[in-house]
Amino acid sequence: MKRSELVADTAITLLAERGMRGLTHRAVDEAAGLPPGSTSNLARTRAALLELTLSRLTELEMRALGPAYTTAKNGAQAGAQAGAQAGAQAGAQAGMADRVAEGLHIQINDRRRTLARYELALEATRRPELREIYDAAGSRFRDPAVALLAAQGSRDPVRHARRLVAFSEGLMFDAIVGAGGTPTFEELRQAIEDFLAGMLGRPSRGL
Amino acid sequence: MKRSELVADTAITLLAERGMRGLTHRAVDEAAGLPPGSTSNLARTRAALLELTLSRLTELEMRALGPAYTTAKNGAQAGAQAGAQAGAQAGAQAGMADRVAEGLHIQINDRRRTLARYELALEATRRPELREIYDAAGSRFRDPAVALLAAQGSRDPVRHARRLVAFSEGLMFDAIVGAGGTPTFEELRQAIEDFLAGMLGRPSRGL
Repeated sequence: MKRSELVADTAITLLAERGMRGLTHRAVDEAAGLPPGSTSNLARTRAALLELTLSRLTELEMRALGPAYTTAKNGAQAGAQAGAQAGAQAGAQAGMADRVAEGLHIQINDRRRTLARYELALEATRRPELREIYDAAGSRFRDPAVALLAAQGSRDPVRHARRLVAFSEGLMFDAIVGAGGTPTFEELRQAIEDFLAGMLGRPSRGL
Repeated sequence: MKRSELVADTAITLLAERGMRGLTHRAVDEAAGLPPGSTSNLARTRAALLELTLSRLTELEMRALGPAYTTAKNGAQAGAQAGAQAGAQAGAQAGMADRVAEGLHIQINDRRRTLARYELALEATRRPELREIYDAAGSRFRDPAVALLAAQGSRDPVRHARRLVAFSEGLMFDAIVGAGGTPTFEELRQAIEDFLAGMLGRPSRGL
């Protein structure tokens, strides 16, 4: 592992465990078992350390979620190809719900990474340089959702993708931060399937 | 205004503008224009300052949202009473969507308060004493939602309320922290109305 990865991974852990106040160059050195000054050598300023951390976090998220989202794409394509068969669209919708729920399940169970993302998301409201990285990462999830929803007959895939992302964010936030505890995969799947059916399965007014 | 309210309101502003790192006893004294030591006199420890701030935030949220949620309750009751008339349930559903969207619109437009709530929500994952206040506040929103959904014929109002809260949280989070910008009231209303219709308007499998 490269030293920059060790530093960023340690920063992610500190953010999750101690919040933004607990993240300092010195705390990273100590927690990573590196000689004093190591983190400063890699990322001189606080802004640089935060950018390094968010970039690494995005990379880890893409790596963890990649398979789920790739499969989702294939599932939708397979569904579309089988479009002549009765019930194919419902099948593709269920397949999409499976994959979205899979992704949520992964995010919710990697509590450390997801908490760190929330810390950085809030910090991004105050730091334009983080904002740029955060928004770019967001579009890497939104864009495939737009394509999938379009493939399933959404009449307004951009708006529907935004709603799906919002629902997903809310389910994650509630699971990680709220009082309700951790939902099972099946609970997530059912929630997403009902959500998609409600959004896509009937004529939507005004969209 | 009582001094404790001034201190808590100033802490809310600091949390929104500077995050958890920017909230210190001294920063509150300075920003509130109080003599040094004033905040420490009121809330000796950091934990005490955070509890004071979250309690005040909850009080401000209830005050801001109270009317919207009270009206929602009345709207549902009115709708239920008119149950004999055709289309009454759809009307009550639309009324509920209006009120939920009203609440979201208020929260999204009070960016300062909502950002501070997110900061405190994350801190609550690390501080059991905050967690208790945060969860109690959450149930003050969830419980009326359960009652409203039950009145509209939900077969599993507890689960459906949790989903509605998650969707609402996600729409707020996306609006405050995400790249999509601030949704209009009408966008929020339509999103919630479609969500409720999807969740309540057809036989839900396995619930």
